[in-house]
Amino acid sequence: MNTINAAIVGASGYTGAELVRLLINHPNVTITAMTADRKAGMRMADVFPHLGGLNLPDLVTMDNVDWSNIDVCFCCLPHGTTQEFIASLPQNVRIVDLSADFRLKDIEEYRKWYGDKHRAPELQKEAVYGLTEIKRDEIAKARLVANPGCYPTSAQLPLIPLLKEKKIGTQGIIIDSKSGVTGAGRAPKEGTLFCEVSDAIHAYGVGTHRHGPEIEQGLSEAAGENIFVSFTPHLMPMNRGILSTIYVTLADNVSVNDIRTSLQNTYANEPFVRVVEEGNSPATRHVRGSNYCLIGVFADRTPGRAIIVCVEDNVVKGASGQAVQNMNVMFGFEETAGLTQQPMFP
Amino acid sequence: MNTINAAIVGASGYTGAELVRLLINHPNVTITAMTADRKAGMRMADVFPHLGGLNLPDLVTMDNVDWSNIDVCFCCLPHGTTQEFIASLPQNVRIVDLSADFRLKDIEEYRKWYGDKHRAPELQKEAVYGLTEIKRDEIAKARLVANPGCYPTSAQLPLIPLLKEKKIGTQGIIIDSKSGVTGAGRAPKEGTLFCEVSDAIHAYGVGTHRHGPEIEQGLSEAAGENIFVSFTPHLMPMNRGILSTIYVTLADNVSVNDIRTSLQNTYANEPFVRVVEEGNSPATRHVRGSNYCLIGVFADRTPGRAIIVCVEDNVVKGASGQAVQNMNVMFGFEETAGLTQQPMFP
Amino acid sequence: MNTINAAIVGASGYTGAELVRLLINHPNVTITAMTADRKAGMRMADVFPHLGGLNLPDLVTMDNVDWSNIDVCFCCLPHGTTQEFIASLPQNVRIVDLSADFRLKDIEEYRKWYGDKHRAPELQKEAVYGLTEIKRDEIAKARLVANPGCYPTSAQLPLIPLLKEKKIGTQGIIIDSKSGVTGAGRAPKEGTLFCEVSDAIHAYGVGTHRHGPEIEQGLSEAAGENIFVSFTPHLMPMNRGILSTIYVTLADNVSVNDIRTSLQNTYANEPFVRVVEEGNSPATRHVRGSNYCLIGVFADRTPGRAIIVCVEDNVVKGASGQAVQNMNVMFGFEETAGLTQQPMFP
Amino acid sequence: MNTINAAIVGASGYTGAELVRLLINHPNVTITAMTADRKAGMRMADVFPHLGGLNLPDLVTMDNVDWSNIDVCFCCLPHGTTQEFIASLPQNVRIVDLSADFRLKDIEEYRKWYGDKHRAPELQKEAVYGLTEIKRDEIAKARLVANPGCYPTSAQLPLIPLLKEKKIGTQGIIIDSKSGVTGAGRAPKEGTLFCEVSDAIHAYGVGTHRHGPEIEQGLSEAAGENIFVSFTPHLMPMNRGILSTIYVTLADNVSVNDIRTSLQNTYANEPFVRVVEEGNSPATRHVRGSNYCLIGVFADRTPGRAIIVCVEDNVVKGASGQAVQNMNVMFGFEETAGLTQQPMFP
Repeated sequence: MNTINAAIVGASGYTGAELVRLLINHPNVTITAMTADRKAGMRMADVFPHLGGLNLPDLVTMDNVDWSNIDVCFCCLPHGTTQEFIASLPQNVRIVDLSADFRLKDIEEYRKWYGDKHRAPELQKEAVYGLTEIKRDEIAKARLVANPGCYPTSAQLPLIPLLKEKKIGTQGIIIDSKSGVTGAGRAPKEGTLFCEVSDAIHAYGVGTHRHGPEIEQGLSEAAGENIFVSFTPHLMPMNRGILSTIYVTLADNVSVNDIRTSLQNTYANEPFVRVVEEGNSPATRHVRGSNYCLIGVFADRTPGRAIIVCVEDNVVKGASGQAVQNMNVMFGFEETAGLTQQPMFP
Repeated sequence: MNTINAAIVGASGYTGAELVRLLINHPNVTITAMTADRKAGMRMADVFPHLGGLNLPDLVTMDNVDWSNIDVCFCCLPHGTTQEFIASLPQNVRIVDLSADFRLKDIEEYRKWYGDKHRAPELQKEAVYGLTEIKRDEIAKARLVANPGCYPTSAQLPLIPLLKEKKIGTQGIIIDSKSGVTGAGRAPKEGTLFCEVSDAIHAYGVGTHRHGPEIEQGLSEAAGENIFVSFTPHLMPMNRGILSTIYVTLADNVSVNDIRTSLQNTYANEPFVRVVEEGNSPATRHVRGSNYCLIGVFADRTPGRAIIVCVEDNVVKGASGQAVQNMNVMFGFEETAGLTQQPMFP
Repeated sequence: MNTINAAIVGASGYTGAELVRLLINHPNVTITAMTADRKAGMRMADVFPHLGGLNLPDLVTMDNVDWSNIDVCFCCLPHGTTQEFIASLPQNVRIVDLSADFRLKDIEEYRKWYGDKHRAPELQKEAVYGLTEIKRDEIAKARLVANPGCYPTSAQLPLIPLLKEKKIGTQGIIIDSKSGVTGAGRAPKEGTLFCEVSDAIHAYGVGTHRHGPEIEQGLSEAAGENIFVSFTPHLMPMNRGILSTIYVTLADNVSVNDIRTSLQNTYANEPFVRVVEEGNSPATRHVRGSNYCLIGVFADRTPGRAIIVCVEDNVVKGASGQAVQNMNVMFGFEETAGLTQQPMFP
Repeated sequence: MNTINAAIVGASGYTGAELVRLLINHPNVTITAMTADRKAGMRMADVFPHLGGLNLPDLVTMDNVDWSNIDVCFCCLPHGTTQEFIASLPQNVRIVDLSADFRLKDIEEYRKWYGDKHRAPELQKEAVYGLTEIKRDEIAKARLVANPGCYPTSAQLPLIPLLKEKKIGTQGIIIDSKSGVTGAGRAPKEGTLFCEVSDAIHAYGVGTHRHGPEIEQGLSEAAGENIFVSFTPHLMPMNRGILSTIYVTLADNVSVNDIRTSLQNTYANEPFVRVVEEGNSPATRHVRGSNYCLIGVFADRTPGRAIIVCVEDNVVKGASGQAVQNMNVMFGFEETAGLTQQPMFP
């Protein structure tokens, strides 16, 4: 069987650990190198005891990886530190970048939202945005895939097809998202301590979150016009999961059933996106630990409006799972390889 | 000191227990009777061990209460069972009804949303909607106060002043609410088991929740025109708390700062409603266990729009606390009496 | 590849759903029938929406299963209802029973702890106790395997080898266990509502839990003498997981390192039991969703004593996972087949 | 009414915030100063938004407090930093120290467990151990009270009376404790991030936790002989609360009912300690947010043994609440003043 060597750069965070969890059962992938600069020399089992039963390479610095040997690099570095590193990789290495560094096509937008000049503008041009179901053909040929943000995945999967087909209005789209805490990463911060999160909820980045422009980029491309959305993320006591409640207006002569049918048709043959039946309400627990995305469509109280609920596991479809899915597409593997784990409930 | 006798009818649920927690430290109230038909004969301490340190009357059936002795009745019966009971009470008893039975002014609306003909239409006419900060003068004179629903409290406190002052548009108001599980009550149901709620979130009653018309009633009265809102409640793993994220359009020539200032002025002298400073994001943990309601106002990404975040403890300001507040107004007590407990964090 | 047909009886509970999660990726098993008497006629996806992406048979009553076609039956019926059902199965069906009905060898003990006379005493004689690592050879030949209880698995895996080797004293063994809420099942009860469990802990069945005699049976057999243990289970806010803290005395001339080494040797070649290194503290999150059992050994403050910490996922190694492991042994499959999923953290 | 001025030193942690929550409703206390060296200049409301509705002094450095004005200082500094500070306070200030610095009578023990030479050995001699129910008379006269640790409070309240009365054996006492996360403080650490704690449990400091010698000091004094205990703390997903499950042997001719009766008699007139009735199992949710301690006594499976379950809120009776209770005793206030809040459930 065709097997490739994978490196995970920045493996000491939650997305790195999740890549290990998924890739360890992938029939075509060997994890050949894992890096974590500050934890170089440690065993992965000491950083993540839940992976203690696996035979894994020890953590090394990025300089100590033999890149000639690597087919694919999953890059889990923090935003802003990724550009120069990826630019330094040899051409034989294909990359799935889980950071935000190559997601925004417009490097001025990048500068505006991420605060720094883009340091690899040429690479940005060739980067393909890795929303698999939407960009599959481009991903197959890409050397560098910019893996989408967790919130943007949950917002774009339902909205892009509807905007392309002009089934919904382009004004006043509202995306109210609720996220688990893994999205905030493993670095110790007061705001993500157990006692600061448990038994509570709050909104953050209201009106200013960086995933706003990423969502708008995808929706604008689909609609063929500039789209502005209201986007409010909330942090809630949940390890994994994003639920986005999306409020839209129906286009003229379009019913709620029309948009449900439209989405069902779009995703009929997709292994990971499922439009649930009328009356069912997708819950994050229905996708926990899996690469699935569920979409529910509801009539609003107000005539002419609909409510769409989209759930995913932010660590899987919203990060590491979609990264593996993209790798599968890039290398011609079965798209579900390494991703057959079913949701874990309870 | 002026002291009154209180009865709690339907005391074996969470709102009943919470009334005990609050009233036991109220300087003007003695809990004289508590009823729970199926648990009559039991000690409250056996139903709620956390109240085991208190000297409380045992639970009795409603028939076994000497109503001649009671000044105020907190009615915590399920929706639909309350009307005839309240109609049967002698005139000396003033009532704070925590059910939905007397909230909707239009008994046809009641029939539509609650499924049954209203059985006390005359009483409905005299009932005063108990949103304390908005209806204080009427509450002071009322014999029967219909205590507001938990979601409607969190939606109306910020929106009513803005609609009255025509600071926001009347179209396209969207209320996305996240609630703790106490709102679902103590009756065993699969959907509120620990394993079905923890580490997850889902929407329910999308487009069809009964608190929708209650919210619209209050907003329409404030605006002087019929208002329809989008309202989506979500159930999340939290004991107490509601956070409503509200999306509005600004009226012409009104800025986000204008609406924050307007709300700050409205509530400047209110002991329980506080508009937080620009940049602060209200969290449910900031009000846990208290009667406070916090309101934050944010600029939206989309020009001409604002986002309002309102938090409360659904068991306190959203139920038993507001009930005590209303009783204080009805009997001329200090409005904060029994409600001086500060939020419990963590 | 050799493939067998499996039936899951009582599939509408958490252990049934977990069997589906595990078996759906098993290379040698087809789920041919699933029963749930009260939910017969429903799709599994309606009972457990997280399984909605799978192609599964609908739920039927037990009478509607064609048993001639079934190789293995996983029996997930409630305690007490299982004996006559299993006695009625044709001889071609091998059974893994997840109930307690065939765990206690002594049917008088069964009557004492479960309240009823045993109704299949002949079957009891042939039942093999399915603690895989301890009883592997017998399980391989068994027609009926009594899958161990969740607590007894966590207590016996560390204690049986130590008692067999006389490394610890037989008196005063104390097992303090903390369990997630899945162990209580999916039937709605006040005690397992979210609000009754979250943000809290309590002990239950203190001195009287039915898993006490099951533990003592296994330990007594290992020690060759009657053993009594102190066993206290606690319910805590966690979906899955059991952590048992076990307090033992060291036998003469035995050190804490001796017992760690002893356990490491015993389990050196076991795929699912791992003795962690000195200084590491096993956590339930290290095994979440997996069939692993981790054991840590610590010196106590008091000389001559040791503390053993054992963790498992109660739904996997403590129930459905061990059931699959036993089936693998019974049918000569790779013992890890269907059980290669790694722990899900966070 | 007699009123005193209180300073809270180290007010930016959870115990500081809790002191504010309790003292703000205390009839005899004014919070006159609050210090937090790194957050000096900030408003308490910015550090703890849940206290935003209160009129509080801003945070200052310790140097900026006018101590001539202060009657009582609650000292919430980290262990090891407290001794010299307290030694520097003028004699008019009485102190309740919530750190561990003055708890161990033997300064050699202190050096052994806390790693440094004690820097105020003279003060140590006058310090009174503040386990209120046990040391009330000494506390009344003390200038410096060493407020007990959270775990030691839960272990000593049930065990000290039984040891004094020789109702239980002095050997083989085992204390298995489960704690909420507030006990770990507000400083950001990986180990107390939400995702590292939620939905899981683990033991820590097994055999080596510093509260071990503190417990042994109290028990040894009560028993009149040196006592060694097994003590294992566990961290679990709960904001507040400690549950200690304590395994003891009965003295000759002593029954389980005898020790329950003994404890009931000991605490019959105590406002905050309650021995629950036979068959009731104390849960941490029964004391959440209150100063209560509940004790349950159970027969063990093994003859001659008993199991005692003790619950408290670690932030209240285990820290700030007991500190206020001690202050009440020191100043002759009603012992329940400021502590009348009932448990918050759910």
